Amino acid sequence: MRDMNRHQHPTTRQVCSHARVRYAETDQMGVVYYANYLVWFEVGRTDWLRQAGFTYRDLEASGIVLPVIEVRCEYRQPARYDDDLEIRTSGTLLSGVRVQFDYEIVRRATGVVAAAGRTVHASVDSAGRPARLPARVKDLFE
Amino acid sequence: MRDMNRHQHPTTRQVCSHARVRYAETDQMGVVYYANYLVWFEVGRTDWLRQAGFTYRDLEASGIVLPVIEVRCEYRQPARYDDDLEIRTSGTLLSGVRVQFDYEIVRRATGVVAAAGRTVHASVDSAGRPARLPARVKDLFE
Amino acid sequence: MRDMNRHQHPTTRQVCSHARVRYAETDQMGVVYYANYLVWFEVGRTDWLRQAGFTYRDLEASGIVLPVIEVRCEYRQPARYDDDLEIRTSGTLLSGVRVQFDYEIVRRATGVVAAAGRTVHASVDSAGRPARLPARVKDLFE
Amino acid sequence: MRDMNRHQHPTTRQVCSHARVRYAETDQMGVVYYANYLVWFEVGRTDWLRQAGFTYRDLEASGIVLPVIEVRCEYRQPARYDDDLEIRTSGTLLSGVRVQFDYEIVRRATGVVAAAGRTVHASVDSAGRPARLPARVKDLFE
Repeated sequence: MRDMNRHQHPTTRQVCSHARVRYAETDQMGVVYYANYLVWFEVGRTDWLRQAGFTYRDLEASGIVLPVIEVRCEYRQPARYDDDLEIRTSGTLLSGVRVQFDYEIVRRATGVVAAAGRTVHASVDSAGRPARLPARVKDLFE
Repeated sequence: MRDMNRHQHPTTRQVCSHARVRYAETDQMGVVYYANYLVWFEVGRTDWLRQAGFTYRDLEASGIVLPVIEVRCEYRQPARYDDDLEIRTSGTLLSGVRVQFDYEIVRRATGVVAAAGRTVHASVDSAGRPARLPARVKDLFE
Repeated sequence: MRDMNRHQHPTTRQVCSHARVRYAETDQMGVVYYANYLVWFEVGRTDWLRQAGFTYRDLEASGIVLPVIEVRCEYRQPARYDDDLEIRTSGTLLSGVRVQFDYEIVRRATGVVAAAGRTVHASVDSAGRPARLPARVKDLFE
Repeated sequence: MRDMNRHQHPTTRQVCSHARVRYAETDQMGVVYYANYLVWFEVGRTDWLRQAGFTYRDLEASGIVLPVIEVRCEYRQPARYDDDLEIRTSGTLLSGVRVQFDYEIVRRATGVVAAAGRTVHASVDSAGRPARLPARVKDLFE
């Protein structure tokens, strides 16, 4: 995972989202439970699409879904209850049926990266078969 | 909520399910986060149907869903990480389009009730319109 | 639950929070899973305290926690993925060791109430013993 | 991730856990939400320790915690509501302050691997400082 934030493909743009840590997201270690960072990744990529004038809701309505086929996350410094977080997301087109998003979760008070990760998504139709991304979606990544 | 475990309608049978508290279900207070008891209620009513030879999955496949329209829960003693819990569920038919489930979450090591609650469900079709419960489902409650 | 939004005690003020429905919060019925409304209640009461110049994080740091001892929620119209929600929260002092919060979850696009609920909290110290609310916290409710 | 189930270090033993997919764990795509597989990983490693005669609860009580510092998961075939899953977990000692767990989530009805993943954990004391694993814990991995 050393090089997980180095892309072979040029990244189009980085979008920032915000989230405040909910009590529900903590665990008895007093920090955020590790699976919850993946939910913030989802918030990040949804906003990445939205800020390009597109919603994932619309994409689904058009019959295309982007299930995650791979995720990685590296935890660097724990986020805690009530922390104000910035989610920095960038997107990369891997092929006509694959996209990748890269994320950094940053504690705004300190600027420190709490976690960094990546998701890879397949483009499939409602029956689960591979489906080429619509041109207007591909264009968002370029 | 004093009388939430007293029914006007006779209850058919009580079904016991088991769950062990996951780390994910705790919060930084060192106990189970309050919303997670509702997930155990769901486990309880699913098993209640299953033990009657019926699965909620089948019910949905037949075009009927039972969304929750009301929930109550009373928290008596916190459940903790790794606790072995028993979920005691009973079901009551309120009308041809309403059912109720009552739950107790018991810590098996001590027999103490950690929480007690109730859900009320509407019977609706896939378009969200009220739909009379199929006879074979109604029969489960009698 | 008919009268769950009528208080015997006068309510001090109503605070509005916002949340957008995450994909993680939906279930296969295509709507928000019922337990997740309780997480928004938590967001609402945290903001209610914050807007009074107080944080729940500070309260905990001072040795007082407010575990939920009772919750009710009535589900009126399902919230869906990507919905923009307003959480309307008001607080009531029930006694020196009990507080209550009332909530409405409203879909901002339509103004329709998706769900309404209530939580009751005990004031306890870090050992779980009842502890009188500090005066500066009691004052927030008046 | 092609080789994520090939270890440089010999694995001691594989432990099987079971989980049934809860409605709460699905999303509106009709399959399990991707973050929830990480919760099953937690169930798996907890059982791996338990079957060695050790509980993670005891480890924490002794002042050592094992936070996740890295996770990977590859999603192969979606798990669905009510699926009966087997979680296959193996553990590897990476160093005196690092352990790794590898997981496969298998649908029991078909034997198909739904997802495979890995977590890496640091051994730290309650203040968050690196702490050598106790000998009796190290021994579990050998």
